[in-house]
Amino acid sequence: MCGSSSVYQNKSLPSLMHSPLLSPQLLNSLTPEENTQCQHGLYFQDGERRVDYILTYHIKKPSSSRSNRQSSRFTDNAFTRSLRRGTARLGRPPPPQPRGDPEVASQDHSMDYHEDDKRYRREEFEGNLRDMGLELEKDEDTKTPGVGFVKIHAPWHVLCREAEFMKLKMPTKKVYEVKQCSGVGAKINTLVNKATEPLHPNVEENRGQHVKHLSYNDLLFHLDLKRFFFLPVGITSLLGSGVYTAAYPLHDVRSPLYVLYSTLFYPKAEIVLFFPCRKYFGEKIGLYFAWLGLYTQMLIPASLVGVIVFLYGCATVDNNIPSMEICHPRNNITMCPLCDRACNYWKLKEACGTARASHLFDNPATVFFSIFMALWAAMFMEHWKRRQMRLNYEWDLTGFEEEEVSDHPRAEYELCVMQKSLKKEHKTHKVLIAYSWIGVTFAIVFGVILYRISITAALHMSNNPTTRSNVRLMVKTTAAIINLVVILILDEVYGAVARWLTVLEVPKTDRSFEERLIFKTFVLKFVNAFTPIIYIAFFRGRLVGRPGSYLYVFESYRMEECAHGGCLMELCIQLSITMLGKQLIQNNLFEIGIPKLKKLIRYIKSKRRSFQEEEREKKLQRYETDHFLEPFAGLTPEYMEMIIQFGFVTLFVASFPLAPLFALLNNIIEIRLDAKKFVAELRRPVAARAKDIGIWYNLLRGVAKVAVIINAFVISFTSDFIPRLVYQYMYSPDGSMHGFVNHTMSYFNVSDFQDGKEPMDPHHLGYQVEMCRYKDYREPPWSNTPYVVSKEFWAVLAARLAFVIVFQNVVMLMSDIVDWLIPDIPKDISLQIHKEKILMVELFMKEEQGKMQFIDSMTPCDGKGRNNHAPIARSRSIPHTHSHTHANNF
Amino acid sequence: MCGSSSVYQNKSLPSLMHSPLLSPQLLNSLTPEENTQCQHGLYFQDGERRVDYILTYHIKKPSSSRSNRQSSRFTDNAFTRSLRRGTARLGRPPPPQPRGDPEVASQDHSMDYHEDDKRYRREEFEGNLRDMGLELEKDEDTKTPGVGFVKIHAPWHVLCREAEFMKLKMPTKKVYEVKQCSGVGAKINTLVNKATEPLHPNVEENRGQHVKHLSYNDLLFHLDLKRFFFLPVGITSLLGSGVYTAAYPLHDVRSPLYVLYSTLFYPKAEIVLFFPCRKYFGEKIGLYFAWLGLYTQMLIPASLVGVIVFLYGCATVDNNIPSMEICHPRNNITMCPLCDRACNYWKLKEACGTARASHLFDNPATVFFSIFMALWAAMFMEHWKRRQMRLNYEWDLTGFEEEEVSDHPRAEYELCVMQKSLKKEHKTHKVLIAYSWIGVTFAIVFGVILYRISITAALHMSNNPTTRSNVRLMVKTTAAIINLVVILILDEVYGAVARWLTVLEVPKTDRSFEERLIFKTFVLKFVNAFTPIIYIAFFRGRLVGRPGSYLYVFESYRMEECAHGGCLMELCIQLSITMLGKQLIQNNLFEIGIPKLKKLIRYIKSKRRSFQEEEREKKLQRYETDHFLEPFAGLTPEYMEMIIQFGFVTLFVASFPLAPLFALLNNIIEIRLDAKKFVAELRRPVAARAKDIGIWYNLLRGVAKVAVIINAFVISFTSDFIPRLVYQYMYSPDGSMHGFVNHTMSYFNVSDFQDGKEPMDPHHLGYQVEMCRYKDYREPPWSNTPYVVSKEFWAVLAARLAFVIVFQNVVMLMSDIVDWLIPDIPKDISLQIHKEKILMVELFMKEEQGKMQFIDSMTPCDGKGRNNHAPIARSRSIPHTHSHTHANNF
Repeated sequence: MCGSSSVYQNKSLPSLMHSPLLSPQLLNSLTPEENTQCQHGLYFQDGERRVDYILTYHIKKPSSSRSNRQSSRFTDNAFTRSLRRGTARLGRPPPPQPRGDPEVASQDHSMDYHEDDKRYRREEFEGNLRDMGLELEKDEDTKTPGVGFVKIHAPWHVLCREAEFMKLKMPTKKVYEVKQCSGVGAKINTLVNKATEPLHPNVEENRGQHVKHLSYNDLLFHLDLKRFFFLPVGITSLLGSGVYTAAYPLHDVRSPLYVLYSTLFYPKAEIVLFFPCRKYFGEKIGLYFAWLGLYTQMLIPASLVGVIVFLYGCATVDNNIPSMEICHPRNNITMCPLCDRACNYWKLKEACGTARASHLFDNPATVFFSIFMALWAAMFMEHWKRRQMRLNYEWDLTGFEEEEVSDHPRAEYELCVMQKSLKKEHKTHKVLIAYSWIGVTFAIVFGVILYRISITAALHMSNNPTTRSNVRLMVKTTAAIINLVVILILDEVYGAVARWLTVLEVPKTDRSFEERLIFKTFVLKFVNAFTPIIYIAFFRGRLVGRPGSYLYVFESYRMEECAHGGCLMELCIQLSITMLGKQLIQNNLFEIGIPKLKKLIRYIKSKRRSFQEEEREKKLQRYETDHFLEPFAGLTPEYMEMIIQFGFVTLFVASFPLAPLFALLNNIIEIRLDAKKFVAELRRPVAARAKDIGIWYNLLRGVAKVAVIINAFVISFTSDFIPRLVYQYMYSPDGSMHGFVNHTMSYFNVSDFQDGKEPMDPHHLGYQVEMCRYKDYREPPWSNTPYVVSKEFWAVLAARLAFVIVFQNVVMLMSDIVDWLIPDIPKDISLQIHKEKILMVELFMKEEQGKMQFIDSMTPCDGKGRNNHAPIARSRSIPHTHSHTHANNF
Repeated sequence: MCGSSSVYQNKSLPSLMHSPLLSPQLLNSLTPEENTQCQHGLYFQDGERRVDYILTYHIKKPSSSRSNRQSSRFTDNAFTRSLRRGTARLGRPPPPQPRGDPEVASQDHSMDYHEDDKRYRREEFEGNLRDMGLELEKDEDTKTPGVGFVKIHAPWHVLCREAEFMKLKMPTKKVYEVKQCSGVGAKINTLVNKATEPLHPNVEENRGQHVKHLSYNDLLFHLDLKRFFFLPVGITSLLGSGVYTAAYPLHDVRSPLYVLYSTLFYPKAEIVLFFPCRKYFGEKIGLYFAWLGLYTQMLIPASLVGVIVFLYGCATVDNNIPSMEICHPRNNITMCPLCDRACNYWKLKEACGTARASHLFDNPATVFFSIFMALWAAMFMEHWKRRQMRLNYEWDLTGFEEEEVSDHPRAEYELCVMQKSLKKEHKTHKVLIAYSWIGVTFAIVFGVILYRISITAALHMSNNPTTRSNVRLMVKTTAAIINLVVILILDEVYGAVARWLTVLEVPKTDRSFEERLIFKTFVLKFVNAFTPIIYIAFFRGRLVGRPGSYLYVFESYRMEECAHGGCLMELCIQLSITMLGKQLIQNNLFEIGIPKLKKLIRYIKSKRRSFQEEEREKKLQRYETDHFLEPFAGLTPEYMEMIIQFGFVTLFVASFPLAPLFALLNNIIEIRLDAKKFVAELRRPVAARAKDIGIWYNLLRGVAKVAVIINAFVISFTSDFIPRLVYQYMYSPDGSMHGFVNHTMSYFNVSDFQDGKEPMDPHHLGYQVEMCRYKDYREPPWSNTPYVVSKEFWAVLAARLAFVIVFQNVVMLMSDIVDWLIPDIPKDISLQIHKEKILMVELFMKEEQGKMQFIDSMTPCDGKGRNNHAPIARSRSIPHTHSHTHANNF
């Protein structure tokens, strides 16, 4: 079947059958100077066989190893061997046999013994690779001292055999035209596509979609990129034990994708939202970028609406009756002091600025916006399901099943299981320690609260009035920055903690290891990022007590209150600083800075040993250049960053309508940086297949669900939306908001202050204060039950809770309806799948016809004779026990 | 391929390969007398070919049609014809061509013209069938006058060809042993299986599971039952236009299943929970019975817990402080009258019985039980997913895709689309009319409320004290029965309305027609069944007003109050009467009674025409017996009944913990009655394949979701659970429930009665009443704001709402955790699928090896020569444009 392809092993440029637009001439003209210099080492010494994969190892004695240099070719494709491999590859590679020559071991000392052992295992493994039909070439004489390279080439027939295992779909010769939908919907679609065309990259993957190969779910292959698939299976344990130091495929400097994206900040602005890298990096990374692209695309309408909501707040700030009342010059309300002794009575007018600012984020449009964002999240989920389905279809993954690739047991599993029984008693102990890290987060949040309280009190004592007026803002901002720094540091710690916890659990398969690790990391990082925010949203200002009976922490620090406009304003500051800080510092600075730094260190290290590095660099082989790059660490950090951002966009969107805008701006940069990083800063990852984004989808769904309830609580408890409504419809004498500010404040008789808590300077305002006001619903001092929560409190509380129920259920219902209305499989895709099926049946019928004609020309009942000619037909012979009567219809 | 099987067309008893336990001897001994007499007519006249399918038609002139009698055999299996059919069967059968002989048409009068047209179309259709390779035999000379029968036999080779279209899985010869799991889990499983063994039917489908045929997703077939698959495709429109009157496969009286279940109330109690009928009725009906079985099985633990909860209520009724206080002999609380003028003040002691009864359904265990039932529903959903997966695997449906069978456009669709443009303006009008039927439901519920109000008032006026004491119970019960009757009547109406609405919508495919119809019927019937219950649970007693300012309907009827213990008691009465009544009358009486009645009518009709019916009946052909049976009307009514029951079990379970028990008892009878009905009362349905239960699963999920929120509201608003908690923790002086009854009642000054509303006999109790009490949280007459809702009201309301939020979110979270913890695919099934895959690869590798050896022995590059020998390999040839270099990796 595959034998005839060896004819095509030539050095000529490939026929660009998949990218008719990119002719070789165009390709050459695009290739920049600095990349061509790295094209050395793309082929074996004979200049014919391509280097597909590189293994590197450490050379202890560079002088003695030169004799090992090999360049053997081994093209054994006997079926017995491939069969043996077929079963062997499901397990681990055979362990190194005890060495036949004990003399060598006794002569060397311990260090050399290990080196020899490693060399022996390398030879063993390389022998296995050759047995599989791979071709190997060693190079220990590079410009990079101390590193040996094994170049691997996978010949065509080996790829064919492997592809059969992988059940890759194959394009048949039959090509059919994909029918374009007609009608109004299609026209709108075309218009939208034209309008967003500048946003789509101008590369091959988005073109040529009008013609599709009719693919057949058979055991053959499509992309020769898939040649890296089967290699990593046995190598993990060898890398772990240090036999090899690295294993990576080579970057393909000839690929148009590489050429385009390796230059920093693409001159032509080639990508904005989508990075079509499936054919370069494989489906798994392709799906990540497709997901990121869709997410960013979906952020456009969200940020538009968010900006409109914010502008609505700005426009209506002057018509807002509560803030007008607070700022009114004749407003004469005396407020109770904000701290014990040091603080004085103050005029409500002083809160004018805060009240006006609060209105920006606390207005009826916010309620609309959080409903909108909940539906937006549901829409995003649905659209992603559709996009994924479409990609599955376009990438011919419909028959592919994930488990075959990643369900084999982890190499570390067996080892761990053996050691597990010994360590069992330690495990619970360690788990407890690990989870106590969450306690650290809470402790730090609490520490920051204490910092705020004490600094506020200290600054209030200052006599400088300008200092005092700026106190609140300063404290808030510095506290938020401290929080941010703590979050950033703990994020790194939590990553390690999660990995440690997962290793302790000893999951059986790679897939379950990855999923558990992701889940743990997600929980820890989420708690880390959102604990201070949740504190501000739901606890701050609620555990204050009341004048005369404040709550104290450590008996001396009074709990914080919120500014007059509710805590929403502070929530907003905290949110924006955390979100922007995380994105700018962690995502972009760290992600780009650290790989660059590491590369530099790696480079400097090897530079120290070399002499003529200027000249050397120019002659560096491609596999050496790649060796200096940072290894690919998986997509988890990328997804994690995005899901935390998704949390910021959806969870507290009621208090910060600009979040989607910031996320959008970040992501547009992010896609470019990620693309650049994947192409030029990291070693090329092994192409992996994937049908979906796995556990990330579930986590996204979870975040979207939690977002509904959190937004319900933010609107009803953090904002003043419900108290305003209750006042307007239950207590307002004329149905307007006039008098609302007065209604929300209770009276306090200053003679009821505890001893030593009253202000030191009671005449600060210029008159004797008898009653001061505070923001709470409590009975006045002259009632029968002074300072007890009033009926208004319970009424407002009931209204708040009722709002939560209504909001949550309405939004969930609407999300379900969105889920139900948008079909999971796009109409055109299901039509095309149906069409393909009909074409397949036709094709099959024609073949069957030919087969029957062939059979008819032979003896009809000689089943055995037929089997040799068409072995597949053998499995179709009917069990002879069948008969025409139906008695076994039970 | 299939040709060799014609050897096996014999009359001998079939080899019971699927049921090794049922030998022919056993079979014969089991066959009852009354069934054997119907074995006439199971074969064609030649006694060899089996009758697979029957078409019946009306004969106008029985004398003249006898000349038409045919018994032709037509075994043309040319591939050109089958190819033509292969494309033609996707559409409708070709329409009747204009008749060549105009003379005949002009001679006959109009009636005969129609008859002739029909006969012509029959001949046309039967010709098509013969072209497809089917064999036909006509019989117009039966004992049933006026009915002609066409017997159809599908030969083996036709079945083979059709099976290829259907992509049925084929068992390969390779049989492997299914590994039994080891470990503690497996042992528990074995124990459970042994314990429930009596519940499982002792038939073949549950045996022989230890050995499984390795099935290959190829284009061949497994069951010859599948021979009915392809027939109904073209016949729907012919049945619709009256060309044929009926089309059905024959009941297989030889099948052990038929033998067992056709006898009324199986002597051996063969089925209790499961009715294994897949091999007799096909996968679709098999899935229904599997689902019903699992549901009934899951009801066992639910009803156990429900009974325990009820018993807990019974046991604690004497320790319940509120009812003790009400029943206490020294209790001296005077209550306000329950109706205007006619009613008198009454002593709270009179409510003693109601208060004690209420405790049975309103105790803390109820809260636990409704959480339990919400989780139970989630567990049921998960278990069904797993069971379905297991059945899919065991029934070899894993590769089957539904759409192929049911996605073809409906025959009526094209016709309707043409007429649609004419009728468009009528449509909206009709839809409006149809939906106004929902208004009818509400109107009737309202009518029943009025009935209750007026009857209560009227009976209160009676002077007979025993009448008066029984008034409440009588009115409640009669009202519930009236409601039940109305529900039963409207249910039938709504079924028709839903069908009419769906027809108006003109859905494109059969599948979408069915789904829309089900959805509409579901909504209408659900509203119908639950409106009165929802009224009682959430509205009754809440819109009463207060003494001195009651709310009136039509200015004279005061709104109803609930009895003292809350409305939970009345809800319980309404629920039990509706549920039991619906189940007994509608499900069992109607389901069994009406088919029996129809069969009788049909029989009497034909009896009138015949003369010697005693003798005739004995000689009745099998296809005539089946003709008298009721046609199969689909599974919708069966599922609908069960989903409404599921609603009763989950939606208001907080108020009626015995609902699962009643459902369980009903279902045990239901399964038996359904089995009996399907086997002996209905014509045998065409075996249909299905992977899942379709829209029913979504409806079940929807009901389970709604159940959470409804139960939350029932507990917090209908029961007194929250007021009790609030009293105990906020108001009780000693933390006990003492004083609760007094706390829940407000004071009313009788001088505040409106004129003409005060009781006619104020001294009825023997003393002058100055203050009476009523159940509400309102300020007393002596406060500043008399009769305004009090602070307690708002506190209790807030607590109720908070409970709803907590309950809903906790239960949803727990359901999600259940969903997440239970994997959708059972572990053993996924292991077996994995194992099968490995075996398939091995098999494939061996075949490939053989093939390669064969190819190697020929010229390796002669692709064309190979294609003739193994046509399948042709589609695997590699596109020659592929090469080894990677330039198109973009």
